Amino acid sequence: MPANMRTAIYLCLAFVLGSVIGNPVVANQRSTVNELALMPVPASVKIQPGRLPVSATFTVATKGYADDRLRAAITRMIARLAGRTVLSLSYDLAADENAAALVIQCERAGELVPSFKEDESYRLNVTDKQARLTAPTVVGALRGLETLLQLLQSDRDGFFLPGVEITDQPRFQWRGLLIDVGRHYQPLEVLRRNLDAMAAVKLNVLHWHLSEDQGFRVESKKYPKLQQMGSDGLYYTQDQVKDIIGYARERGIRVVPEFDIPGHATSWLVGYPELGSAPGPYKIERGAGIFEPALDPTREQTYKFLDGILGEMAGLFPDEYMHIGGDENEGKQWDRNQQIQAFMKEKGIKDNHALQAYFNQRVLKILQKYNKKMIGWEEIMHPDLPTNAVIHSWRGPASLAEAAKRGYNGILSAGYYIDLSFPASQHYVADPLPENSTLSAEEAKHVLGGEATMWGEWVSPETIDSRIWPRTAAIAERLWSPRSVNNVDDMYRRLAVISRQLEELGLTHEKNKGMLLRRLANSDNTGPLRTLTSLLEPVKEYRRYEMRPQTMLSPLTGLVDAARPDSDTARHFTSNVDEFLSDAPRFALYRSTLERTLTEWQNASRALGPMVDRSPALQEARPLLNSLSAIAEAGLEATSYLTAGNAATTEWRDAQLARLDEAAKPKAALEFVVITSVRKLVIAAAELPQLKSTTPVEWNKRVTIMAAKP
Amino acid sequence: MPANMRTAIYLCLAFVLGSVIGNPVVANQRSTVNELALMPVPASVKIQPGRLPVSATFTVATKGYADDRLRAAITRMIARLAGRTVLSLSYDLAADENAAALVIQCERAGELVPSFKEDESYRLNVTDKQARLTAPTVVGALRGLETLLQLLQSDRDGFFLPGVEITDQPRFQWRGLLIDVGRHYQPLEVLRRNLDAMAAVKLNVLHWHLSEDQGFRVESKKYPKLQQMGSDGLYYTQDQVKDIIGYARERGIRVVPEFDIPGHATSWLVGYPELGSAPGPYKIERGAGIFEPALDPTREQTYKFLDGILGEMAGLFPDEYMHIGGDENEGKQWDRNQQIQAFMKEKGIKDNHALQAYFNQRVLKILQKYNKKMIGWEEIMHPDLPTNAVIHSWRGPASLAEAAKRGYNGILSAGYYIDLSFPASQHYVADPLPENSTLSAEEAKHVLGGEATMWGEWVSPETIDSRIWPRTAAIAERLWSPRSVNNVDDMYRRLAVISRQLEELGLTHEKNKGMLLRRLANSDNTGPLRTLTSLLEPVKEYRRYEMRPQTMLSPLTGLVDAARPDSDTARHFTSNVDEFLSDAPRFALYRSTLERTLTEWQNASRALGPMVDRSPALQEARPLLNSLSAIAEAGLEATSYLTAGNAATTEWRDAQLARLDEAAKPKAALEFVVITSVRKLVIAAAELPQLKSTTPVEWNKRVTIMAAKP
Repeated sequence: MPANMRTAIYLCLAFVLGSVIGNPVVANQRSTVNELALMPVPASVKIQPGRLPVSATFTVATKGYADDRLRAAITRMIARLAGRTVLSLSYDLAADENAAALVIQCERAGELVPSFKEDESYRLNVTDKQARLTAPTVVGALRGLETLLQLLQSDRDGFFLPGVEITDQPRFQWRGLLIDVGRHYQPLEVLRRNLDAMAAVKLNVLHWHLSEDQGFRVESKKYPKLQQMGSDGLYYTQDQVKDIIGYARERGIRVVPEFDIPGHATSWLVGYPELGSAPGPYKIERGAGIFEPALDPTREQTYKFLDGILGEMAGLFPDEYMHIGGDENEGKQWDRNQQIQAFMKEKGIKDNHALQAYFNQRVLKILQKYNKKMIGWEEIMHPDLPTNAVIHSWRGPASLAEAAKRGYNGILSAGYYIDLSFPASQHYVADPLPENSTLSAEEAKHVLGGEATMWGEWVSPETIDSRIWPRTAAIAERLWSPRSVNNVDDMYRRLAVISRQLEELGLTHEKNKGMLLRRLANSDNTGPLRTLTSLLEPVKEYRRYEMRPQTMLSPLTGLVDAARPDSDTARHFTSNVDEFLSDAPRFALYRSTLERTLTEWQNASRALGPMVDRSPALQEARPLLNSLSAIAEAGLEATSYLTAGNAATTEWRDAQLARLDEAAKPKAALEFVVITSVRKLVIAAAELPQLKSTTPVEWNKRVTIMAAKP
Repeated sequence: MPANMRTAIYLCLAFVLGSVIGNPVVANQRSTVNELALMPVPASVKIQPGRLPVSATFTVATKGYADDRLRAAITRMIARLAGRTVLSLSYDLAADENAAALVIQCERAGELVPSFKEDESYRLNVTDKQARLTAPTVVGALRGLETLLQLLQSDRDGFFLPGVEITDQPRFQWRGLLIDVGRHYQPLEVLRRNLDAMAAVKLNVLHWHLSEDQGFRVESKKYPKLQQMGSDGLYYTQDQVKDIIGYARERGIRVVPEFDIPGHATSWLVGYPELGSAPGPYKIERGAGIFEPALDPTREQTYKFLDGILGEMAGLFPDEYMHIGGDENEGKQWDRNQQIQAFMKEKGIKDNHALQAYFNQRVLKILQKYNKKMIGWEEIMHPDLPTNAVIHSWRGPASLAEAAKRGYNGILSAGYYIDLSFPASQHYVADPLPENSTLSAEEAKHVLGGEATMWGEWVSPETIDSRIWPRTAAIAERLWSPRSVNNVDDMYRRLAVISRQLEELGLTHEKNKGMLLRRLANSDNTGPLRTLTSLLEPVKEYRRYEMRPQTMLSPLTGLVDAARPDSDTARHFTSNVDEFLSDAPRFALYRSTLERTLTEWQNASRALGPMVDRSPALQEARPLLNSLSAIAEAGLEATSYLTAGNAATTEWRDAQLARLDEAAKPKAALEFVVITSVRKLVIAAAELPQLKSTTPVEWNKRVTIMAAKP
């Protein structure tokens, strides 16, 4: 990282931490603060003098309450510490507290079943003598152990923990990740490694979206046709479910199951068509979108079935809450079913929303019978819904505020749809309780937190990690850290470090890209392809399916699957272009970096032609090559004009902008994310003469405004 | 690949295939033969005109016998085909045989429990109309499906299967991979993906080495202290064992369990010290090597216990064979135990070998009671051993031949110790029945095959794949293909292709290297580190433990773990140097490649200094940087002398050779594998004057001889 960026970041971080520190020691320890990469940032961090070396003699002692969960967490922590340091650390707890490098002191186990009422707070004090982690509960200690691992640093003298005093607790109690295994089944090891990653960034709810139009993924012993006919054989046995719940609990993570009803339930109807609102037969849905099948809310048989299955699942899942979905039922089957229409008339139910409210009331009674509280997507909100239900806001934050005002607890997912390929920066600014919230303090307490949602249309076991991570760590920070922790550049600085650490837990977000590219190229020589994909992101929102229709059975091995959201390369390029232009009229800053980068793109576009010829799996990339070539050429020529001090003609500019417009059009469901910066270069080249009559700062503003697409 | 190497390989391949083909069509289809990358090479391949396109309409039909195992294999094959082609293929079987691209015709299921008596033969005929796979058994069809996937090729016109007629069956019936989970436990997903990889190269035995001094890895319900006290909690439940056996059976793979007794059994004695030949107490062994603890062969209690545990395991593992180890018991505990000495005297047992033979006789009776045949390491061979036992040869091929002469069936592992970091080429030439074998045809039938052995001292779930693959594919070829298939260059050409294909099965041998380097460097910028490790291999044989002692609890995340056996870079460099020198006195061939390569090494050695400074985990690499620098400098200077036609002085030569000698010394349990080639360059530079008085060929011979270390 260039020195001036480091300075900028340091200033930002100092600002961020300054707001919670206010300690004169900080000023003397800047270099250390600058290197901290904690994510989520703790509620309070005070830098202290000194450092605790981490050597082969590092040992841990416990004091006060300790149990198997804590001891297992210590073992895992030591394994990760040993892995990073390549030191043969001892796994035996130190008998003598004074001899231990780390002392962990807890008061109690915490909730028997993980709960959002858990006390997750901890304090971590590191001096040159010892590190002390104290927490009321073992779960708090688990959170603190993750912070400890993030503190590990090194220099020529070895590994060490910097002197700090950290006091930490979460801003929100409900910090979740939804994994949709309905649309694409995910093997147990995918869930396990993602639970490890969640724990690393202090998320505490796995929202397990277990049923969808495209699959019912849990074994029911009562209604076995659910999984037998509704899952293609891809489901979790009850033993496996227990295994995942236990694995999550070990990490202080709740498992909230979702059984999405009355819509999104086609897979239920394959084995039990009698539950549907149309006669059937039904088959497992293979497409993506919103489908018509819905449970029939007017027949007692439906509720008898739901009592059976939800009762069975209530026994399997210990969490206090059960998510019943409730979203996106358009009621088209209901409209066409005369018996349903007659029922509505008879009961005075005026529309489908009211009919669904009736359905929810009945489901609520079933859940209550099994001692479960209801959570559902925002559509479930209705005057008849009791206020101990939790509202899951997905269409926008307004419903969350409205729910809070009406006295419902709520969680936010609008803004955290990680399946839509938006950058981390965009998720990072979505706040469940923004500064301008109109909620009273009392109402604000109803905002429990939020959940990132990994909807499963376009993720396979090979790619899912790269869709969740590292971006979800930024969301985890939003949900844990103080609202004032909001510097995007510093978030990205730390995200890069955390992303690497996630790899030690088996996450494949980084390493699978090379594998996907090798398969596509049928070659180990994937350099040019890597260059290309580093500039591309999958199209945003739901455009992928429009541009490149596939079914749930289609392979997820294309170029769009190898490309990742939130291109680092593009972010660095954007920053370099801005620095370069800010150096007007000299244009020396980052000049060689830009030229080298653009030349690399040009070389890649040339090298890729023969590769695409050989690899039919890359055919869809062909139009991207012309775009890449146009981008590189425009950028190189513009840079050359600027550095030579020659103004480009408007004809040249317009020709380049036209080519860039063409390059900006998505192809193969991918889009280049450097176009705006190249537009800036092109426009700047044509605007060179204006530099004489204005300041560089004003000139830059003008160029930036012109480059922003009309 | 340079054109002249392609030609060379083509000629070799034509020779190889020519010996089994003898078909005039071959001559007309050379370009296609040249591109085939089948591994193991089938018994007979005939090239036919035409090609079968693989498009989105590709479907499969079955004819004759079909069962769930076959259908599941077809589904897996389609998923892999779809993954590579990015085509949305149908998973539904074609109803009409004529409309299908591939027709599979079997006669019967094959053995209920996979057996080495299985008929694994198949025929695969591909024309421009259709592919037909016929096999007597479903297992034969599974083998043929793997060949089909290896046949997939592509060009500008799309994906296709080339026209071929393949008739195939294995040379040996027992083609195994031993995975030692005793020293390091391996999770189920590691076993599953390795079973997939085994199936891909037609291996048919997973030899599951389940107990060791360092761990007892199976749940015993009868003697639960075995796993409770002997495994650190890392063991397979009986359900998980059944799961793995089922997974293997689906792929036509046997699972032969090994319970290594009477030595290598420390972990048994932790829970059951009364079985030992010394009083105990015992604890789980953490070191590597040969240890003293051994079961007491003189007490009835031992046999009662073995009857219990082996009986329980006989019920769990359906294979006809049970491996009882029997290796490396030095009998030191026996020598010191007076009761044992008295027993030997009383029974007239003259030495420890005889005592172990007595023990084996008793174990044999137990196995017979449970209808199991015995297999054990070669030490079990003894006049009293019945000839239906299988001898597992590990110290050398002599014992295999001796066993065959005495009428025992035997398998070979000597030569296939993949834990020792030797290159694939070395394993490839080890033949269970070499051409110069002195066995009669009848005796030769006793040679059943062989097994690669993945001993587990230094492998973690992160690194084990890189120790097994791709080298084991070369061993798989040795055990399946005709003996005449033995061209090393062509093996490596195909191995590179197969290695990439293994990645689609989830194997991590390639992708985990980057992850390990990122962790070591604590940075994404691992280019120079990758260059360094590409020239290094772990030291061979058992020197790693001597040079860099660790326990079984130590992290396997060091540079030696990131480096892989059998460096491709070194092999290519060696070849380039030879080509370059063969071009004497012009020295133009590969000159620029060599210069670029050596310069890259020099740059890497410079860039690595600061990286090592920052990363204490890389401290052990520091001495390697000087070596790398010396190697690069010597190579560059020598190349410069040669291309300029200037003879180097003997002083210069001696100084360089001395530096290279220093560089050749292993450091951090790693060694450079390019030294001999650089020595060649250095010596050649000093020998330039001799070129005038001899032919380039003679001159090259002389240089080669001089460069070979005295």
